[in-house]
Amino acid sequence: MSILFKNCKLLLRSETPDGSPAYRAEDGFLGVDGKIIDYIGTQRPEKEYGEEKDMGGNLLMPGLANAHGHAAMTLVRGVGSDLSLQDWLFGSIVPIEDRMTPEQVVFGTQYAILEMLACGTTVYADMYSFPVECAQAAAESGIKANIPRPLICFDPQMEADDCDRIQETPAMFRAIDGMGDGRVLADFCMHSEYLTTEKTVRRYAELCKEFGARMQVHLSETKKEHDECIARHGLTPMAYFEKLGVLDNPTYAAHCVWCTDADLDIAAKHGVTIAHNATSNLKLGSGFAPIPQALKKGIRIALGTDGCASNNNLNLWEEMHLAAIVHKGHTGDPTVVSPHQVLDMATRNGCLAMGRTNSGVLEEGRDADLICVDLNALHMQPALDIPALLVYSAQGSDVLMTMVDGKILYEKGEFLTLDKEYVMKGFKKSCEELLGI
Amino acid sequence: MSILFKNCKLLLRSETPDGSPAYRAEDGFLGVDGKIIDYIGTQRPEKEYGEEKDMGGNLLMPGLANAHGHAAMTLVRGVGSDLSLQDWLFGSIVPIEDRMTPEQVVFGTQYAILEMLACGTTVYADMYSFPVECAQAAAESGIKANIPRPLICFDPQMEADDCDRIQETPAMFRAIDGMGDGRVLADFCMHSEYLTTEKTVRRYAELCKEFGARMQVHLSETKKEHDECIARHGLTPMAYFEKLGVLDNPTYAAHCVWCTDADLDIAAKHGVTIAHNATSNLKLGSGFAPIPQALKKGIRIALGTDGCASNNNLNLWEEMHLAAIVHKGHTGDPTVVSPHQVLDMATRNGCLAMGRTNSGVLEEGRDADLICVDLNALHMQPALDIPALLVYSAQGSDVLMTMVDGKILYEKGEFLTLDKEYVMKGFKKSCEELLGI
Repeated sequence: MSILFKNCKLLLRSETPDGSPAYRAEDGFLGVDGKIIDYIGTQRPEKEYGEEKDMGGNLLMPGLANAHGHAAMTLVRGVGSDLSLQDWLFGSIVPIEDRMTPEQVVFGTQYAILEMLACGTTVYADMYSFPVECAQAAAESGIKANIPRPLICFDPQMEADDCDRIQETPAMFRAIDGMGDGRVLADFCMHSEYLTTEKTVRRYAELCKEFGARMQVHLSETKKEHDECIARHGLTPMAYFEKLGVLDNPTYAAHCVWCTDADLDIAAKHGVTIAHNATSNLKLGSGFAPIPQALKKGIRIALGTDGCASNNNLNLWEEMHLAAIVHKGHTGDPTVVSPHQVLDMATRNGCLAMGRTNSGVLEEGRDADLICVDLNALHMQPALDIPALLVYSAQGSDVLMTMVDGKILYEKGEFLTLDKEYVMKGFKKSCEELLGI
Repeated sequence: MSILFKNCKLLLRSETPDGSPAYRAEDGFLGVDGKIIDYIGTQRPEKEYGEEKDMGGNLLMPGLANAHGHAAMTLVRGVGSDLSLQDWLFGSIVPIEDRMTPEQVVFGTQYAILEMLACGTTVYADMYSFPVECAQAAAESGIKANIPRPLICFDPQMEADDCDRIQETPAMFRAIDGMGDGRVLADFCMHSEYLTTEKTVRRYAELCKEFGARMQVHLSETKKEHDECIARHGLTPMAYFEKLGVLDNPTYAAHCVWCTDADLDIAAKHGVTIAHNATSNLKLGSGFAPIPQALKKGIRIALGTDGCASNNNLNLWEEMHLAAIVHKGHTGDPTVVSPHQVLDMATRNGCLAMGRTNSGVLEEGRDADLICVDLNALHMQPALDIPALLVYSAQGSDVLMTMVDGKILYEKGEFLTLDKEYVMKGFKKSCEELLGI
């Protein structure tokens, strides 16, 4: 299958001499053959494509990468609003999660995929129960996803080899990795310092290295978590994970709200990506992640929605907006965090964190993971500065089309791989069972 | 003309024993006769209505009130991104504004009205050049608007009676007030302490009192403005305006970012409404307005988008979202600023500030200024906690219908009073003339 997109603008990336990202929108043609972008140019290519799509002057840009979330938490959207993280998570959410069946989690995941595709997300990192089932749901939908089995272990005396989550990991990893024609990748995942033990963390980190996999982790999300780690180990979560070998793996760390300057130096040294979850951090009262400082140290920043129970949606456009404005307000410096940096966070950086090195940029030879954004929406005119419009004005509803690996999965309200009615029915039933509504 | 809305939920307001707002959504019927809501109930009314509208199970709620903005700044959306307020305003924006013609400002205003109606705004406060022309644009569209002639005067020696803006005010006030069958009201407006003089402020405040009008003002938006006022007058902007009699008028003050505790006491004493512009304050690096403290003192908070050049859109759903989460992040307290308080800010409080005492709540006898919100959108399910969904999940694009004074002005992408194509053409031409694009 091959498609030529015409009558469109293309969001192209270059770098300034100092290595900063610079995005520009240019009129052009973009050709897709199979899974790959095989043509970008201002002139119509000589090659004949199977289909030509007139994009009405709208913008093609790389798909969005959601670098931290818990997809199936769509099932608990709105549960326990306006509580602290500890009360919300352990008082309201976990008791419901403990009752979730694999079937419910699959409906929650499929529903999340609908929501993400409609907002232009082409790849997401997950962290939830029943990873094999979640991976199958992702694989069937055509989206890309990184799915781990999160390590959780409470008993400090337990030997790593006796921990069921560690025992299960190799088989689960092999079951998941490469599903959906390679679109689904298996990750490793350390839930957090506070839900693991030193012995299991050390062994799990080694195992991740043996598999050559990526490591996800929750890190310094709240002051309580950060301070209690110091009290327990004499080390911050970042330093603790470094000491135990976790960061010797390609790591992406969610939140990092309370990271110190020394923590950021550790992150920079090990190439850790920070998955910034601005909405969740604000909504739960966790605080402001030190994103401007991290950028200065050259740390890669990606964006995440977190679970939609603490967000309460899966809309990365809101995360772009917040990442662009919150740190200006917090530092008093309106020049800190540029729209160009935010576009990198939302696309290329998330892809790199998730090992999607061939995605995240519109270039010939790259994976055709791309979206079309409505430039004719009222709030997108005048189209004077398109990077600024995307970050400060655009809405999730401006996404007109979402393509992954050269296949259109969503276009103008229609889902082409998932059966929306079936998913919504199963999702509604699952919510009724779990929430009693 | 009369309409009965059926198969809908109604967002109803009550108060807890301590006077806090409490919103709930109930299945019901809502009847509109002429400009007025004449029926609310769970049973179908006996009365026959001219038209019945099946709302598909979606939500009727009060229209949104934009309590601070500069509508025609749609023309300069995206100009001078990522600069400080001073550089952005005086270096980039004002030189373009100085060239604007009344015709261009009218197109900018009409375009803003399209954008606001599509996002569910039923009333807005304006502050711009050519107020009579702006008022006519608002009147023709059917939206409600409060339009002032902002006082600007630089010469400290000038006597108030020699100031052209003061001379013009009575005639302009009379021309504007009551336009559009009473939907357009004239306000008074003190641009700010830094663009006025003591003599003119004093006289203009008296004049406002003579007209029994409301007073708009920019107040303590930036630290620079706040500190320079203290240096000039030995008083904060709030105390200065109190001393000169400004606050003896019903006042709504935009920003109030740097207001001290004593300033908030003054605001509480005089019943000043704070028009909170979270996006603009963050984007320009101005800071965090002391909203939690103001709420504790019983000060009325409304929401504003500010001009869309510092936002960069006119979407009050983003302001609701930010008002609900930013102060949680800033204070570290996830219980501060509830969704119920935010719904009050976005609807009733803005209406009260703008003298729209009969709008802002769904009750029999109130003005039929209301909107329909899509509860079937993916991000609005499960519909467990509708106030939380509206504040944390909803998008501007979820607005299905906007009604003002019993007349539908917008429904599912169609504008019923404004000629969208004509406005867009004139807007585009104006942008080309002003921005050279």
